[in-house]
Amino acid sequence: MKLLRIGAAGSERPAVLVDENRYIDVSDVVTDFDEHFFATGGIEMLRPLVTDRVGRAQTQTLGSVRIGAPIARPHQIICVGLNYSDHAAETGQAVPSEPILFTKSPNTLVGPNDDVRIPRGAEKLDWEVELGIVIGSRASYLDSIDEARDCIAGWLVVNDVSERAFQMERGGQWLKGKSAETFNPAGPWLVTPDEIADVLSLGMRLDVNGERRQDGSTATMIFDPFFLVHYISQFLVLEPGDLINTGTPPGVGMGMTPQVWLQQGDVMEVAIDGLGSQRQSVIGPRMGGER
Amino acid sequence: MKLLRIGAAGSERPAVLVDENRYIDVSDVVTDFDEHFFATGGIEMLRPLVTDRVGRAQTQTLGSVRIGAPIARPHQIICVGLNYSDHAAETGQAVPSEPILFTKSPNTLVGPNDDVRIPRGAEKLDWEVELGIVIGSRASYLDSIDEARDCIAGWLVVNDVSERAFQMERGGQWLKGKSAETFNPAGPWLVTPDEIADVLSLGMRLDVNGERRQDGSTATMIFDPFFLVHYISQFLVLEPGDLINTGTPPGVGMGMTPQVWLQQGDVMEVAIDGLGSQRQSVIGPRMGGER
Repeated sequence: MKLLRIGAAGSERPAVLVDENRYIDVSDVVTDFDEHFFATGGIEMLRPLVTDRVGRAQTQTLGSVRIGAPIARPHQIICVGLNYSDHAAETGQAVPSEPILFTKSPNTLVGPNDDVRIPRGAEKLDWEVELGIVIGSRASYLDSIDEARDCIAGWLVVNDVSERAFQMERGGQWLKGKSAETFNPAGPWLVTPDEIADVLSLGMRLDVNGERRQDGSTATMIFDPFFLVHYISQFLVLEPGDLINTGTPPGVGMGMTPQVWLQQGDVMEVAIDGLGSQRQSVIGPRMGGER
Repeated sequence: MKLLRIGAAGSERPAVLVDENRYIDVSDVVTDFDEHFFATGGIEMLRPLVTDRVGRAQTQTLGSVRIGAPIARPHQIICVGLNYSDHAAETGQAVPSEPILFTKSPNTLVGPNDDVRIPRGAEKLDWEVELGIVIGSRASYLDSIDEARDCIAGWLVVNDVSERAFQMERGGQWLKGKSAETFNPAGPWLVTPDEIADVLSLGMRLDVNGERRQDGSTATMIFDPFFLVHYISQFLVLEPGDLINTGTPPGVGMGMTPQVWLQQGDVMEVAIDGLGSQRQSVIGPRMGGER
């Protein structure tokens, strides 16, 4: 099943994709794809409902409607750093012996085709195509990788937009370069695990202005998604609807010689096999007084 | 005004403190002290209501009722590292040139007198009395310190519980040692700014088993609360109800010679002048299968 949220920012309606251009509206039975939805078995509840509605031909056409992030603002967004062996090499850093974790502010979440806004004072805006995990049930001190597997609601494409000067040159932790508004485009849909035969062999691509910048595969992940959920659950409690960004393959602007940064007017196209594609325009910073 | 939330964990009712042992229940007009409450001017709405109810003698006795955290689970908890000149010295680290930011998972928030649970595998559990800031209105790219002042809903006591081995010895960022369940006791109340004449001259104390471990003052903060809110708003958007932990004065277990760590059965007593006091017992880790 592919879950999506459609409509204007802030008032998206939950829906289920039927085929490339048709969906079933489920806003009459589901408030949102949020913590409550995942915690109460919402995905399994939807399956027969969607089958029934498709049978009754209650589909609608996607057309040019805006697609939002496929989940509501989560309780937390956890990110994994340097989780691809070939990306660690391009940044000149050692392959970590255990996962590096950091966070993004949950309000960075935006739709897959929304604009990415340059923060005020930004110098080094960068891109990162990543496989995102949405947590389906509360996860604390999981005993095994199999238990972790059962806690995953689905997969999605995310762009972990980063400002490298804020991240690396402003003291301390990475948070500062990861949390500006619009820094987490997600979607277009949340794809349930049964639709992806092997999550560790998905091609991942990111183009800037039509030039291929990232061309990787989940096959070079150091710590796989099931290991990550198990690992993170030893340090904190993952809530239903939480998002984990699992790291990026090589080809970020920081890794190029010379380094390349996003500029106003640039267009990013981001895709992962089986999970859909995104397209973001880079827009200028907010003017004085505008927030 | 002093806002508090009373009742069992997960079903707290919003209330306003009248004097040491009496409160006004406001759960008939306020759902919770959450993002919506702060965003819609809830505090100013409550003032005349409380005056009226006190006049009608509609107070209730606090007695032995459980007090929860004074705010609902926030959108984010931002923490400031090494923000006291004398604490930076005790950890052997340089005074930072600009604020160091990190995060705790929002679900670490618990009541001021709730138990603090040792995480599984913990070795170096530590305490940190801190002044907490609750954000009253959305803050993004604030132009001035005065604007930051207007975005603060109030002050509270927090204990930024930390596991130093997870924080420092497990790779990368500090998050891992800051986000275990029960790691953010907060309260007993949220005190509005009009009740605190000078937030930069408040004594702060933390005792472990009756021995004074921290005995500091907000006077030695490097970056004051107004500067911090202004600063953070340049990197991310603060939402109403967000919590900022502003750093700890000297006297943490990590800074002692030899270092001292919390053990099962220890009792922490935590207080800041004018903001009230907390008392937490340290309990053992969850057993296998228990989550």
